[in-house]
Amino acid sequence: MARVVAAKENAAVSDVLILTTGGTIDKLYFDALSTYQIGESVVDRVLRTAQVKLPYRVAEVLRKDSLELTDDDRALIAQTVADAPERRVIITHGTDTMTHTAQALAGLRGKTIVLVGALAPARFAESDATFNLGMALATAQVAAPGVWIAMNGTIFDGLRVRKDRAANAFVAVD
Amino acid sequence: MARVVAAKENAAVSDVLILTTGGTIDKLYFDALSTYQIGESVVDRVLRTAQVKLPYRVAEVLRKDSLELTDDDRALIAQTVADAPERRVIITHGTDTMTHTAQALAGLRGKTIVLVGALAPARFAESDATFNLGMALATAQVAAPGVWIAMNGTIFDGLRVRKDRAANAFVAVD
Amino acid sequence: MARVVAAKENAAVSDVLILTTGGTIDKLYFDALSTYQIGESVVDRVLRTAQVKLPYRVAEVLRKDSLELTDDDRALIAQTVADAPERRVIITHGTDTMTHTAQALAGLRGKTIVLVGALAPARFAESDATFNLGMALATAQVAAPGVWIAMNGTIFDGLRVRKDRAANAFVAVD
Amino acid sequence: MARVVAAKENAAVSDVLILTTGGTIDKLYFDALSTYQIGESVVDRVLRTAQVKLPYRVAEVLRKDSLELTDDDRALIAQTVADAPERRVIITHGTDTMTHTAQALAGLRGKTIVLVGALAPARFAESDATFNLGMALATAQVAAPGVWIAMNGTIFDGLRVRKDRAANAFVAVD
Repeated sequence: MARVVAAKENAAVSDVLILTTGGTIDKLYFDALSTYQIGESVVDRVLRTAQVKLPYRVAEVLRKDSLELTDDDRALIAQTVADAPERRVIITHGTDTMTHTAQALAGLRGKTIVLVGALAPARFAESDATFNLGMALATAQVAAPGVWIAMNGTIFDGLRVRKDRAANAFVAVD
Repeated sequence: MARVVAAKENAAVSDVLILTTGGTIDKLYFDALSTYQIGESVVDRVLRTAQVKLPYRVAEVLRKDSLELTDDDRALIAQTVADAPERRVIITHGTDTMTHTAQALAGLRGKTIVLVGALAPARFAESDATFNLGMALATAQVAAPGVWIAMNGTIFDGLRVRKDRAANAFVAVD
Repeated sequence: MARVVAAKENAAVSDVLILTTGGTIDKLYFDALSTYQIGESVVDRVLRTAQVKLPYRVAEVLRKDSLELTDDDRALIAQTVADAPERRVIITHGTDTMTHTAQALAGLRGKTIVLVGALAPARFAESDATFNLGMALATAQVAAPGVWIAMNGTIFDGLRVRKDRAANAFVAVD
Repeated sequence: MARVVAAKENAAVSDVLILTTGGTIDKLYFDALSTYQIGESVVDRVLRTAQVKLPYRVAEVLRKDSLELTDDDRALIAQTVADAPERRVIITHGTDTMTHTAQALAGLRGKTIVLVGALAPARFAESDATFNLGMALATAQVAAPGVWIAMNGTIFDGLRVRKDRAANAFVAVD
């Protein structure tokens, strides 16, 4: 009930902030080097293709593999979320340490924070990136304050989930 | 708080039912006829590409342009939702009369129902279909019981939204 | 032998002219009308994605379903080819009457003309359009003067081919 | 003239052999390893999407980055081409040493051989792979016997071309 009202208000007034930090979702491929690098974020292009009318803002915080993120990087992400005027924040992030960053954000109050990434680069024809960003944008609007992870078609409590590297999938933990 | 617990449970146990009824999202193009028709639903392919691990079930109810849906068709959709064991139901639907069907589902209690479609066929390289299905699957997990519409990057109260045909976009109404 | 030399020269000096006339290859889909129309040609975007370095020029002659092409339209296409400074000309064209236009171009001397289209719109994720344009650009460079049709993975003598509508494919005729 | 006849015969009777050797065109991305590797060839999927009706055969010879190809590997490729019953052969190949392999094939007589690759993996939404394969299939049908390279929208004499790594493009040499 209260939720229904809240969602309608969102549609009218809400801003969502999307912070990009790097990870597979934004990987490019450079043939000249036979290697890959993290490129400019695809978020804006994906949201335009999806004909998103909800007001949103995209800001790049970092451009790193998540295995290379330091404690200072996580502190920077948390501070950026805390300082933002938006109550609803999506963070695109590499999947390997996404749950670590979720822990680092656990102390923030009054914000609905959704961590999201991709198992295949968004620039691939077959990628989970667009679907996952759709999940994240819905969750940012509908979910209660807290830290959430949107991966593998599932909205996880961000503090009770781990990445199973062998299965290359996120799974809930008790 | 209660929501956080609920979501974790979903991840472990929930089933989502996805009913397909037709609409632009599933349009094919036939060159021999120089026409578009509604094909087999793309839902399953989209969810597999998105590496969805949440248990879900897809069932075709209809395969129609939404302008051709009759009162009997809407009664059939409502009955199918009511009879389903799943509490969380996504309905893919043409956009032109999506809000009419939302009204027809308003009486159902205890179900989180998400109507979703696309402004461009999912088979187009540039379509909102995959993003919208991601929004719908997240909303089905996170939102309170009621009828929701997931379009244009926004989760609308399904009873307080209209399609602005000139703008080709959904907008909230008071 | 002579061919090898010729092709090397092409790479260095040749211009290819690409005339667009409409057809399925450039079909858009408009949900607001639940219909489709022929949009701006995708040719330039396809050639940029393919990282084409060969100098080429694109010009729109018509924007029609090929079933709607008149004798005057075909005369206009032929005159445009005849007047062009380029010896190598690609024509994107609807498939239903592509062979009629090939006949109308048969009298032109000293030009390598390649007719090409698509069975599914280029804007679809799964379309033959990009592949077919690749075939056409190669044929324009390598083939002898004459009229060619590049469809279904095959380079046909443009005067000895028909579209089998039941099979939705081009087949050679004796 | 003779060419026109030849092409018609191709359409009716010709076989094209497609040998895959690896390279960027077939690169996959593995998130669990945060790396790219060469996967199963995409050639067959690309040709089916293009609705190719010309009889063809695909065979994997190697699955390597072209920088890792040895003299023995090139001898194996040449022997496979020489032994094949098909007169028309396409070889998918990494771009870095594609011209070396062209030299190794220069001695073969009576075969039209087309080397082709991609600057971006075929699995990317934006790749030159599909277009390049279209160029290769047309060239295999239309070009005279010899060794050809189909890249950057250009059909090069395979013995008079180099890859400009700084520009990430192939250019003709005198």
